[in-house]
Amino acid sequence: MSHNTFGHLFRVTTWGESHGPALGCTVDGCPPGIALDEASLQRWLDRRKPGQNRYTTQRREADAVRILSGVFEGRTTGTPIQLMIENTDQRSKDYGDIAETFRPGHADIAYFQKYGHRDYRGGGRSSARETAARVAAGGVARAALAALAPGLRITGYMTRMGAHALEGPRDMDQIDKNPFWVPSAETAERWAAYLDGLRKAGSSCGAEIEVVAEGVPPGLGAPVYGKLDTDLAAAMMSINAVKGVEIGEGMAAARLTGEANADEITLGPDGQPVYASNHAGGILGGISTGQDVVVRFAVKPTSSILTPRASITRSGRETEVVTKGRHDPCVGIRAVPVGEAMMACVLLDHLLRDRGQTGGVRGRIGAED
Amino acid sequence: MSHNTFGHLFRVTTWGESHGPALGCTVDGCPPGIALDEASLQRWLDRRKPGQNRYTTQRREADAVRILSGVFEGRTTGTPIQLMIENTDQRSKDYGDIAETFRPGHADIAYFQKYGHRDYRGGGRSSARETAARVAAGGVARAALAALAPGLRITGYMTRMGAHALEGPRDMDQIDKNPFWVPSAETAERWAAYLDGLRKAGSSCGAEIEVVAEGVPPGLGAPVYGKLDTDLAAAMMSINAVKGVEIGEGMAAARLTGEANADEITLGPDGQPVYASNHAGGILGGISTGQDVVVRFAVKPTSSILTPRASITRSGRETEVVTKGRHDPCVGIRAVPVGEAMMACVLLDHLLRDRGQTGGVRGRIGAED
Amino acid sequence: MSHNTFGHLFRVTTWGESHGPALGCTVDGCPPGIALDEASLQRWLDRRKPGQNRYTTQRREADAVRILSGVFEGRTTGTPIQLMIENTDQRSKDYGDIAETFRPGHADIAYFQKYGHRDYRGGGRSSARETAARVAAGGVARAALAALAPGLRITGYMTRMGAHALEGPRDMDQIDKNPFWVPSAETAERWAAYLDGLRKAGSSCGAEIEVVAEGVPPGLGAPVYGKLDTDLAAAMMSINAVKGVEIGEGMAAARLTGEANADEITLGPDGQPVYASNHAGGILGGISTGQDVVVRFAVKPTSSILTPRASITRSGRETEVVTKGRHDPCVGIRAVPVGEAMMACVLLDHLLRDRGQTGGVRGRIGAED
Amino acid sequence: MSHNTFGHLFRVTTWGESHGPALGCTVDGCPPGIALDEASLQRWLDRRKPGQNRYTTQRREADAVRILSGVFEGRTTGTPIQLMIENTDQRSKDYGDIAETFRPGHADIAYFQKYGHRDYRGGGRSSARETAARVAAGGVARAALAALAPGLRITGYMTRMGAHALEGPRDMDQIDKNPFWVPSAETAERWAAYLDGLRKAGSSCGAEIEVVAEGVPPGLGAPVYGKLDTDLAAAMMSINAVKGVEIGEGMAAARLTGEANADEITLGPDGQPVYASNHAGGILGGISTGQDVVVRFAVKPTSSILTPRASITRSGRETEVVTKGRHDPCVGIRAVPVGEAMMACVLLDHLLRDRGQTGGVRGRIGAED
Repeated sequence: MSHNTFGHLFRVTTWGESHGPALGCTVDGCPPGIALDEASLQRWLDRRKPGQNRYTTQRREADAVRILSGVFEGRTTGTPIQLMIENTDQRSKDYGDIAETFRPGHADIAYFQKYGHRDYRGGGRSSARETAARVAAGGVARAALAALAPGLRITGYMTRMGAHALEGPRDMDQIDKNPFWVPSAETAERWAAYLDGLRKAGSSCGAEIEVVAEGVPPGLGAPVYGKLDTDLAAAMMSINAVKGVEIGEGMAAARLTGEANADEITLGPDGQPVYASNHAGGILGGISTGQDVVVRFAVKPTSSILTPRASITRSGRETEVVTKGRHDPCVGIRAVPVGEAMMACVLLDHLLRDRGQTGGVRGRIGAED
Repeated sequence: MSHNTFGHLFRVTTWGESHGPALGCTVDGCPPGIALDEASLQRWLDRRKPGQNRYTTQRREADAVRILSGVFEGRTTGTPIQLMIENTDQRSKDYGDIAETFRPGHADIAYFQKYGHRDYRGGGRSSARETAARVAAGGVARAALAALAPGLRITGYMTRMGAHALEGPRDMDQIDKNPFWVPSAETAERWAAYLDGLRKAGSSCGAEIEVVAEGVPPGLGAPVYGKLDTDLAAAMMSINAVKGVEIGEGMAAARLTGEANADEITLGPDGQPVYASNHAGGILGGISTGQDVVVRFAVKPTSSILTPRASITRSGRETEVVTKGRHDPCVGIRAVPVGEAMMACVLLDHLLRDRGQTGGVRGRIGAED
Repeated sequence: MSHNTFGHLFRVTTWGESHGPALGCTVDGCPPGIALDEASLQRWLDRRKPGQNRYTTQRREADAVRILSGVFEGRTTGTPIQLMIENTDQRSKDYGDIAETFRPGHADIAYFQKYGHRDYRGGGRSSARETAARVAAGGVARAALAALAPGLRITGYMTRMGAHALEGPRDMDQIDKNPFWVPSAETAERWAAYLDGLRKAGSSCGAEIEVVAEGVPPGLGAPVYGKLDTDLAAAMMSINAVKGVEIGEGMAAARLTGEANADEITLGPDGQPVYASNHAGGILGGISTGQDVVVRFAVKPTSSILTPRASITRSGRETEVVTKGRHDPCVGIRAVPVGEAMMACVLLDHLLRDRGQTGGVRGRIGAED
Repeated sequence: MSHNTFGHLFRVTTWGESHGPALGCTVDGCPPGIALDEASLQRWLDRRKPGQNRYTTQRREADAVRILSGVFEGRTTGTPIQLMIENTDQRSKDYGDIAETFRPGHADIAYFQKYGHRDYRGGGRSSARETAARVAAGGVARAALAALAPGLRITGYMTRMGAHALEGPRDMDQIDKNPFWVPSAETAERWAAYLDGLRKAGSSCGAEIEVVAEGVPPGLGAPVYGKLDTDLAAAMMSINAVKGVEIGEGMAAARLTGEANADEITLGPDGQPVYASNHAGGILGGISTGQDVVVRFAVKPTSSILTPRASITRSGRETEVVTKGRHDPCVGIRAVPVGEAMMACVLLDHLLRDRGQTGGVRGRIGAED
């Protein structure tokens, strides 16, 4: 739809640059009457915020979110919710060189070509800081989902960090116990050593993230351009540095035969469908089936690295680039809460398309409050 | 973003079921003055149409496209272009069983759950026949691109069929010379044998398609939710049976280091950027750089197969399903022209966002025609 | 909103020119399970179709509507409904002059300036024929409203024809008994004489139409740019030749004091609000209150007249224009069913925004049909 | 489109309540490279801000606007521009009664019915304070228009205040010299006396505002649902308290004959069209012709008055309402700069649709800055 907005009934518009005074988002279309306060949003932002350990950028941001509108007496009113996060630890002087020289693999050359005039400080709008606003919006979506689809639960985790995949049995309880949100204590240990090495070498690496939604009601999504998977693909691909998106079997579906791909169906004790497998990732024909919705996406390695790369300047001179400043060696780590947030926003949007934004008249004269 | 519409300034709305009287699309936002006739659209539809060889469904459809509006004296007027394709070879009796029993891996159970009431004949709206309308719309987009971005060229081809990848050197001249649009004569031979085997066994397989756009002007796409790759991901994921989408390096970007991923830049003889590699797939920060735009997507295997699979009925009974009727053993083959069409539509839409739908006043009193 | 589409969840895209092979619309977002057939739509089209009496254009069009998709076994499926009306009585030769000379007050000069290349036959897309597609779409909306908001009833009528206003007491039973849809037998007689005079003189006149919706549930519409009155204003102003739109008191609200404008509220026997007046036209703050929704709009006189007017040619020459061909002396007459149709579409769209497109899961395994 | 957003390429999303901490808007789609600072926006806000004379609410707000994003080194970057205005003079205790009792003619009953839960302080989101955000957005649009359509000039003024119309010759130089933006010193004097009387009596009155845009390029607007007048009608009707919108001749077009309505055309010295009159209001077939674009709208009287009116309470009791607090006796006065702002936004949006958001690639390697 518009360039800085996503969603159709639950619509999020983000704004703000990495080194401007603030960033945030307008959340439009949240149903009325949902319990919401700053603390419940802060919980999600704290998961994404930088500087929490040696594996993320050392920029120190509190990422404190303020609700400026749309909430009254602790509940949403149905009007737009403005969420603002002030930037406090910008160090713009670090970026002087970037104004003139383009980093290979970074958006700065594309922004320059398109706009001529850009905010180069910290990547401006192409910075990972933009995703803080998504996480805040995702917090609103989660609050609404908690009320409207009580059994729904969204979990994101890393399944690959650079050369190393998640291996061995998955232990979901581990996710919150390591800096990589990986469901395996052993893998976390292996990755820590690997990333320490990369960080010291001034290098970086990519990542693969999986986000699973359990308890999704069947019937979300619509043929043909409002498919649930279409919107999930767009949502994940819109996260900066993402280069691929998969639903269920994903790219590997190309390798399967029809027999192997068929998720066989039997009846459960309640007379409702039970599936023997989930190659579909919970979505058939663009519509949720009631199985877990499974999305994976790949984040490319941070392009701001200490290893010199050949590049050019804005004025048309060949040069070499080494990027100092504070950067995540694996920006994919912080993409985990972002992927969860996007999943929440897309699911709520589709739920509202089916059930409506208020469900009908909500205030009746003479009724008990 | 309505459910059967895609695009923002170049907007396509498709309609029609597999076994209804007709299907088609409304193309809204095509610039005025573009040369267009039915023959130039038919050329693209003929590439996609079924029944051309033993590797696609034996349903015989001429897929003859009619232009019902928006074109006058051989040129577009800027008003909506209605394209209609009549269905002529429906055999609805083949689908009697499907009304009651759901095919594992097929959209029919999801449609039933969502809508209660569905057109089960030939999959209704979830059928691959819907993609004929996309190819017609893509033909309009190509005509406009030919006028507005003369050097732009879009090529699609298969890079995997089930167990077998495209191997050996790529020979683009081969693409139109084999039924699989694969750029390798040897691979085509190997795939023919493989698919013959699958077809005889009543099986099916998935496919991977790559679509490349050369000559894309830099500056297409916009941060943050109108990224060129976001819209390409949505466009490809909206094609039926697609389960994954990749831009450039795609999912493999997760495995790379920052040094490996950096597409180093030097200056060409014209003083403009030359890239040493194209991990980015021609897009940085959601914006085209002038490199080739490279998209890949995976199509799952056809779910209508002759091998029996466990399933259930609408009335709540366990059963086994064997799907007769006429089906593509590898529906991904015909997805090649569909992927090209989606690429054309997305690129034109973004070109118009930057340059406008008319470029300013076009008719001046007293001017030569 | 795209250029030939209106609505957010219930979306209508119209296409077709006055003298092309056909015209029609795609109706996207109609809820599933609604009873619909061609006869029920034809009923509304027959009210608008030309050539029914001496007061409308003598072009003879059956305006027979065909449903090409989205309906199966007499009920909507939730997928897009394509409605097509073939043009049968075009006489393009009548319009030879118009290609070169612009009619004062007509869209042809504006189309030429914008597009350079236009379909001048019968006004192309600016013709009143486009409104046939709206009436067809309105028929779908009415069918859905009949199911979802049973007490809702929409009635349009003329309140002014040129120099003559509707006068005397209103008798709603008269609306269908005269060619002007005016709720007064005496006024109808007076208008007939007036219009006969204008027609013979080769002149034309404007009209004012009022559309009232009774039984509208409270709570439709949303602040601030999705107000019910905002969408009604846009819907009515988008009808060709409309120059003004009023809600309730309309432009006359400027003349009132706060006391006079206040619709005083008491309680009805059911404990719900009863209003002493309806200056608001049933809408406060953009949201329906449960009172009748009242919209009025003005249609300018037909610009194709036999009286010579000063004008210019495309090649830049001054001239005089006299328009022959077949035209409505008061095109506003046929705008009555069009206004009703737009009201139906807007109300349904807002109802769906509040209650959703399906209301939740509709097909349950094992349930009775 | 979405509920708190308007525009298609130049998109404005407003947020904020009358008595929350702040209000503002996100302006998305402003072209890059436009000179913009807070002072240039403040100029427009100062025209609308309350408390400037005895004819507007005595609430004292500085309405100081802050630019939080999208501008770098004094020029727009093409990314979203966040504008924030802090509320400083809320007196929420004034509104205690309103929480329980509904004001006849006010949105509070409709909000309650729709949402159940609302921010009743100062009308929440239905307050005229929301329009401050529109004026800020309009300031951005004006800055862009100044660069892209240099001769374009927008002027708004009052043409009626309650019982009294603007009379006598129009003297545009007077507009900025009286508190009513009326182009006549004598009328201003008459209105001052009239409004003093109303204010003392605890009453209020409606108003009619006209907004004229000179120098609008021909070709803006598009058939059929993206007409320039359609979008203007929606824009004006979305302003709170507006009940009618007219283009050119407006509702009076219903009274005209075809001859009277025809704006005859001759050729000017430059060979381009010259019109003898402007019944069309500068728009034919939804497209600008190059004549002045003329829009009028009516604002109903303020519903918060000191005269007692019959009403009901939320809990279902009949009562009488007298509204104390600080209110505009004629809220239409402050609608003048709001109408201008909406005109600017709509015109820019349509200009961008035709010419594009960047006009093509803007940053070229090696070019002079």
